[in-house]
Amino acid sequence: MRERGLLIVLSGPSGVGKGTVRKELFSQNDTKFEYSISMTTRLPRAGEVDGVDYFFKTREEFEQLISEDKLLEWAEFVGNYYGTPVDYVEKTLSEGKDVFLEIEVQGAMQVRKKFPDGLFIFLAPPSLSELKNRIVTRGTETEDIIEGRMKVAKEEIIMMSAYDYVVENDSVTLACERINAIVLAEHCRRERVSKRYMKMLEVE
Amino acid sequence: MRERGLLIVLSGPSGVGKGTVRKELFSQNDTKFEYSISMTTRLPRAGEVDGVDYFFKTREEFEQLISEDKLLEWAEFVGNYYGTPVDYVEKTLSEGKDVFLEIEVQGAMQVRKKFPDGLFIFLAPPSLSELKNRIVTRGTETEDIIEGRMKVAKEEIIMMSAYDYVVENDSVTLACERINAIVLAEHCRRERVSKRYMKMLEVE
Repeated sequence: MRERGLLIVLSGPSGVGKGTVRKELFSQNDTKFEYSISMTTRLPRAGEVDGVDYFFKTREEFEQLISEDKLLEWAEFVGNYYGTPVDYVEKTLSEGKDVFLEIEVQGAMQVRKKFPDGLFIFLAPPSLSELKNRIVTRGTETEDIIEGRMKVAKEEIIMMSAYDYVVENDSVTLACERINAIVLAEHCRRERVSKRYMKMLEVE
Repeated sequence: MRERGLLIVLSGPSGVGKGTVRKELFSQNDTKFEYSISMTTRLPRAGEVDGVDYFFKTREEFEQLISEDKLLEWAEFVGNYYGTPVDYVEKTLSEGKDVFLEIEVQGAMQVRKKFPDGLFIFLAPPSLSELKNRIVTRGTETEDIIEGRMKVAKEEIIMMSAYDYVVENDSVTLACERINAIVLAEHCRRERVSKRYMKMLEVE
C-alpha cells in the first residue's frame, strides 16, 4: 500500500500575497507537490486558461457539484462561486503525492474539518511583526489609528490560531523557502516515518 | 524579554554517522545554530583541540561536575566519561540562540526529561529503508541472518519512538538539508509565532 501524500493548505488574510507566493513556488523546478486548480463561475480574464488558472464552470454546473458534495470547500464572493474539486485532491493524495491548495481563510476552515491532518500554513503580513515598532512610535499617530491597527492585528492573530504554521511574507523568496522547509520537515516527522518502517516489517 | 532559542538534539544508533553530519552542518556558512561542545575525560587524540573538539577534563573534575548537577547528560564509555555542560546550553538558549547537541541515544533520553520541548532528531541508517528489499530477497539468505537483521531493525524503530523527527542518513548532504529544514520549520510553528505576536500586543 502506498503512503498517502500530504495535503498542504496555504491561506491567510486577503491581500497578503497568497497568489504571488503560490506562483513563485510552482515556478521552481524542484517543486515536489501538485497544485490543485480551483473551480469558479466567474468569467476568465484576459490570458486565463481553463484547466490552468481555474476550471471555469457555469452556476448550474457549480451548484450541481455542491449538491453532490463534490467540493472540498467552496464560497461565494461578489456573486461568483469559488471552490476546490474533491476528486482531484483525493486521487492525487492516494497516489502518494502531496497536494497544494491556496485558498481563503473560510475555505481553509472547511478543509480543516475534512482533513484534520492536513498541513495548514498561515501566510502573515509582514506588518504584523512591525506591531511593536508601531506601538512604540504611537506618539506620532492618533489614538484611533493605533486602536484600528491593534484591532486588525488581534483579528489576524486569532485567525492564525487554527493553523499549524505561520509564514511571514516579508519576502516572496523567503516565504517560499519556509514553505518548502515545512513540507520537507513534515515528511521527516517520526509518526509518519516510523509508520512507514512498521509497515515494512509487517510485509513478512 | 527575548524569546528562548531552540534546543536541537541529533542522536541515533552508534555508527550511523552523527559526527560526520554535525561537522558538515557546521562547515556551512549559513548555519544559524550554536554547537555545544561535549566534555570528556579521555585523552585528546592527535589534532584535537581543547574547547574546539571537546573540553578535556580529569576524572576528578568531571565527577565534581556530576555531583554539582552541572551536566545536562553524561555517560561512561570504555572507562571514560562524556557529557554536556548545562551552563553553556542554558546561557545560549536564554540569549535567543538555537543550540545543537550531537549525542548518544542514552544521553538524548536524559536531555528529553530536562528539555521536553527540545527538538529531538533521530539519524537513521539508510539500511533501515532497504528493509523491504532485504526481506523480499531473503531466499538468498539464511534464516538466522534474516532474523538478526529484523531484530536490529525493530530495535532501531523502537529507539526512534522517543524522537520528534527521523532523518535518514542516505547522503550527508541530504541529511543536512533535512535538518536545516526541520529547524526552519520549527521556527514557523504557530504556537511559537503566535506567542511572539501576543507578547508584542501585551507591550502596551
